[in-house]
Amino acid sequence: MALIDEIREQPSVARRLLAEWRRSDLEGYAQPILPQRPAFALLAARGTSDNAALYAQYLLAVRNDLVAALATPSTITLYGARPRMNDALVVGISQSGRSPDIVAVLEEAARQGASTVAITNDTSSPLALAASHVIDLMAGPEKATAATKTYTAELLAVTRLSAMIDPLTDAEGAALGRVPDLMESALATEPGAQVLAAHHAERNQAIVLGRGYGYATAREWALKMQELAQLPALAYSAADFEHGPLALAEPGLAVMAVAPSGVELDAQMALLRRLQRDHGARLLVISDDPDARRLDEGLPLPEGVGGWIGPIIEIIPAQLFTYHLTSARGLDPDQPRTITKVTRTV
Amino acid sequence: MALIDEIREQPSVARRLLAEWRRSDLEGYAQPILPQRPAFALLAARGTSDNAALYAQYLLAVRNDLVAALATPSTITLYGARPRMNDALVVGISQSGRSPDIVAVLEEAARQGASTVAITNDTSSPLALAASHVIDLMAGPEKATAATKTYTAELLAVTRLSAMIDPLTDAEGAALGRVPDLMESALATEPGAQVLAAHHAERNQAIVLGRGYGYATAREWALKMQELAQLPALAYSAADFEHGPLALAEPGLAVMAVAPSGVELDAQMALLRRLQRDHGARLLVISDDPDARRLDEGLPLPEGVGGWIGPIIEIIPAQLFTYHLTSARGLDPDQPRTITKVTRTV
Repeated sequence: MALIDEIREQPSVARRLLAEWRRSDLEGYAQPILPQRPAFALLAARGTSDNAALYAQYLLAVRNDLVAALATPSTITLYGARPRMNDALVVGISQSGRSPDIVAVLEEAARQGASTVAITNDTSSPLALAASHVIDLMAGPEKATAATKTYTAELLAVTRLSAMIDPLTDAEGAALGRVPDLMESALATEPGAQVLAAHHAERNQAIVLGRGYGYATAREWALKMQELAQLPALAYSAADFEHGPLALAEPGLAVMAVAPSGVELDAQMALLRRLQRDHGARLLVISDDPDARRLDEGLPLPEGVGGWIGPIIEIIPAQLFTYHLTSARGLDPDQPRTITKVTRTV
Repeated sequence: MALIDEIREQPSVARRLLAEWRRSDLEGYAQPILPQRPAFALLAARGTSDNAALYAQYLLAVRNDLVAALATPSTITLYGARPRMNDALVVGISQSGRSPDIVAVLEEAARQGASTVAITNDTSSPLALAASHVIDLMAGPEKATAATKTYTAELLAVTRLSAMIDPLTDAEGAALGRVPDLMESALATEPGAQVLAAHHAERNQAIVLGRGYGYATAREWALKMQELAQLPALAYSAADFEHGPLALAEPGLAVMAVAPSGVELDAQMALLRRLQRDHGARLLVISDDPDARRLDEGLPLPEGVGGWIGPIIEIIPAQLFTYHLTSARGLDPDQPRTITKVTRTV
């Protein structure tokens, strides 16, 4: 199956996951997965899955009052460290479930008696076997080398994890239930994404900005542009970019931003206006806010996106843009250079 | 004082810190700062200080068996989250001590009764006032816009923090005591760094790699090249780069690497050889290992650097290279574009 088919398959993957979780909730054995509230969460992941972990870092802090750390597996695999995890909820995120260093973190956590969860597309993988609880991505085989449908499935799995600690309110459940339809709306941006991609075919660098929940999307968008379009794209939290890296700003610099309406928008708008007015940057803004899109070029989001649901939807226009950018640069999105599907770092 | 003077001042700042800590240890009131062992550590920082926090993440895991999370201040300042930190050691790192969002994390931690530590160059700053314990960087006024001497002072302060939890062994104390002399040796690389910088004056991108402890150095080197030399430099853990971002590799791509001898070296050497042989990348390797330096171009480290002491020394050749790269690109290292000294994000 080609990459574009997997991008388009995302609403049906989301529908399948939500239906499965509704069924399992009705049977009444989804919650709680934890014998007691953990002192903190530890998330082990690499590459695209690490961006899902970044989303989890925000969601667990905001919804579950849990500090979440992104694991540094090499402290265990290279330096033989045995960091204490027995009071933690330890989560491994890996599409294949076969990254040895992610498995090593889960195995050490299990040895210490921590609660462990695997988020994976392969429930018979070593990661799944190492964990006491598995959230199955049910995304079907991912044939394309670049991960797309498993990324949004991982984000949904993170909401499931959060809901297993603190059940969703009715309003939250309803918001999550709208995700597949919002994904369909986001897929409708493809013609616009194709037109804008052609404008950027000759770029030799790009900056990608996000804030709060949107930072995970900015990171994942930049990673996809690196992997597929061979474009050196630097992702920053808008808060960090305003300081040192702002020195990179110069006339014609491509600045891409994930800027949904919400509490993050005002500060981002001020930064984007400044980049445009004072530095001559060219902006491409993914937003449901018409003013944000009209700053320069924009790709729309369906209304009502933003907040904790935002990342699951916002990445879709970014994937479509990147897909067409890759073609516009004369590259084949289905044959990216040198990516290997399984992260085999030890 | 010009940037180059502050780079050269680093050994004397280190000597001052180590002397102060020896004196305070003799008086017997340095340890312990903590009423009890924390369940985990939380590190709040931005920009250069965030790279010192990354070093702390590795050091606290390896030396103190502590999982350390890098804080996401916007969960508190934007979303009003109150993540539980009462079992944590919460550390704010900021040269100025005046970044409002870092102060906000410490204030919330203190409100919850957590142990709090400020690592700052201003002991009367809001960050210092919010913390129950202060580690003074004693680096003197930092006049240059880009942080150099306060970065290595922050790394040393992180070793102090670690030693306050688990006292240094005699061997560790001796290793730390050699740091100022090792810094002097590293400063002697300046003529070589100037020559190599001229080779890279026309670059329009660079990749910077590190592994384990060296990853913090790779990140800080890339940040300095962005801020000062206006070069879009992408930093990766060598473990992450091998997968998706390897697609960026192409003939002539500049790959810079922090590769001291030690357990990290073999895997890094294999990757660097592959980048050179299969992709035609041009390498610049900072290492004490002659074979690593001779892969292509190299900058030497004094022998015996590496492991947990490594980052305090390795950044110095990288700073010198970046300083001269900035001049070679026709820019003024003392007047970088658009950096503001205090990170004022709320």
